[in-house]
Amino acid sequence: MPELRKDPVSNRWVIISTDRSKRPTDFLDHAVDKKKGGFCPFCNGSEEKTPSEIIAMRPSNTGKNQPGWEVRVVPNKFPVLRVEGELNRRGDGMYDMMEGVGAHEIIIETPEHDKSMADFSYEQVQKVLWTYKLRCLDLKNDLRFEYILLFRNYGDAAGATLEHPHSQLIATPIIPKRVLEELEGAKHHFEYKERCVFCDMIKQEMKDGQRIILENRYFVAFAPFAPRFPFETWILPKTHNTDFININEEQSFDMARILKDSLMKIKKALNDPPYNYIIHTAPLRKPEGVYTHWHMEIIPKLTKLAGFEWGSGFYINPTPPEEAAKYLREVEI
Amino acid sequence: MPELRKDPVSNRWVIISTDRSKRPTDFLDHAVDKKKGGFCPFCNGSEEKTPSEIIAMRPSNTGKNQPGWEVRVVPNKFPVLRVEGELNRRGDGMYDMMEGVGAHEIIIETPEHDKSMADFSYEQVQKVLWTYKLRCLDLKNDLRFEYILLFRNYGDAAGATLEHPHSQLIATPIIPKRVLEELEGAKHHFEYKERCVFCDMIKQEMKDGQRIILENRYFVAFAPFAPRFPFETWILPKTHNTDFININEEQSFDMARILKDSLMKIKKALNDPPYNYIIHTAPLRKPEGVYTHWHMEIIPKLTKLAGFEWGSGFYINPTPPEEAAKYLREVEI
Repeated sequence: MPELRKDPVSNRWVIISTDRSKRPTDFLDHAVDKKKGGFCPFCNGSEEKTPSEIIAMRPSNTGKNQPGWEVRVVPNKFPVLRVEGELNRRGDGMYDMMEGVGAHEIIIETPEHDKSMADFSYEQVQKVLWTYKLRCLDLKNDLRFEYILLFRNYGDAAGATLEHPHSQLIATPIIPKRVLEELEGAKHHFEYKERCVFCDMIKQEMKDGQRIILENRYFVAFAPFAPRFPFETWILPKTHNTDFININEEQSFDMARILKDSLMKIKKALNDPPYNYIIHTAPLRKPEGVYTHWHMEIIPKLTKLAGFEWGSGFYINPTPPEEAAKYLREVEI
Repeated sequence: MPELRKDPVSNRWVIISTDRSKRPTDFLDHAVDKKKGGFCPFCNGSEEKTPSEIIAMRPSNTGKNQPGWEVRVVPNKFPVLRVEGELNRRGDGMYDMMEGVGAHEIIIETPEHDKSMADFSYEQVQKVLWTYKLRCLDLKNDLRFEYILLFRNYGDAAGATLEHPHSQLIATPIIPKRVLEELEGAKHHFEYKERCVFCDMIKQEMKDGQRIILENRYFVAFAPFAPRFPFETWILPKTHNTDFININEEQSFDMARILKDSLMKIKKALNDPPYNYIIHTAPLRKPEGVYTHWHMEIIPKLTKLAGFEWGSGFYINPTPPEEAAKYLREVEI
């Protein structure tokens, strides 16, 4: 019998479809295609092919926009939002619009073109996470921005257009709808229980254990109760923390460890599938941010959305999270 | 400069991305693959390969589950929700769940395997729409159901697994989130203006004209002001009508004409792209249904969702709807 499950934060329903049940071995034909060869603007030595770097982690004997860096942040050459100008909110009859003001940056995660993040050293992943934090600290000063979204697209099916390892940052002039929904859900839970909904979730998951994938001192990775996608994996700091920007150095090393290990387990279990990861964090200025609890959502791209999902906002997931978690727990890395 | 536009019903924001602007000719490599050959359970003569038919439009000299039908409705062999049983709502600690009770039916739209709906006769499209109505009238009597979603997936990238022309119906035991959002938006507008938000939209679009694609006596097709996808097309009845179930015969012929012509224009302009269409209509029993206005949304699948869309709920659309509508208006069919 299929099961309908509700996510306790966003209130979205997911159908765990037992009649269409799929095991990891049903998903092995999604492997990300490595094209090899051709020019890459993100490689070491091609620095002049990107817009001038914003920051970089590089030895002090190398200069700005020169080779030798470890992590490098540049503006996106084809930004979805532009950093110059004013919002100019206006109407057109019943419709509302504004200029697409924002920041769109690329975090080039390594000079090594062919390495997956799953294969990075823990130290390299930590440098990427720390770079995220540094960019957030800087962009928070621009009062036009209300939210900073950090995400990674891996593989063509997940929307990546360049294969060199990179993540992206988009700072938006309004709080995105998806973030508002999560905030509202978290606030609603807090008003009812006087507790953080994510803290409650962590407590129940750790007690129950069947959806846990990995754990270390500061972080836990689990398959959520109502996952939209097969093998969806969430990583959360174990103690309440609203904003990713607060991560300290010790925590960032633990986050790097659990992130790399989770990605490696997904890579091994599912034959290097495409995925997105997204950091969910508090808005830059909205006081309701206190109700949330920052975390990362990793969503492998193994299923396609169809008319039912578009029309209903329900998701159909053929793999129960208990099975996915058990499988990922047992994959040796 | 990119432009941020807000949909007046759902309040979702869309980025019309001028820096990544795409014209119809940029999308021609998405053509739906026709596999040809192989066994098809939906073809004339294979009736015993599907579950027993629920209804069919067929000449009176042909019998149930026999060849000779024009439109045929069967239960889905691999349903995402199952029609037997009770909901059994329950909790698991902080989580909520229930049994996946619902109906999942396939509307086989023609016995002709190789025909796209864009190539159907107007009469055939009308028969499909009328079949939708008949199924809704019947399923409404089952008090376990709160909503009926009618949709069509065309092409692999849009989630279709069989290529024989068909659409699907899923009756759900709860009102889907996406539908509730639309209802809430429509109710909010009504409380503020004492007018239907869709009626206001139709008035503004018809006066303005730049996003109109097609029009006939009872229906209008236009590109919405804040489309999520390039060439997204909405078809609405011109006068206020909350529920698709109310469509009369005369209107159904007009709807068939505008639907077939819209699909043909999309097929010609974009080299037969994958798409979904979805009928948005009132819930079966909720009194707030009076605020909505039924319509169909056609969404061609030419772009991929990536981390930004998943994390924000924003959509990035590289084709302004004014350009898409102009192009579709001018395509000769």
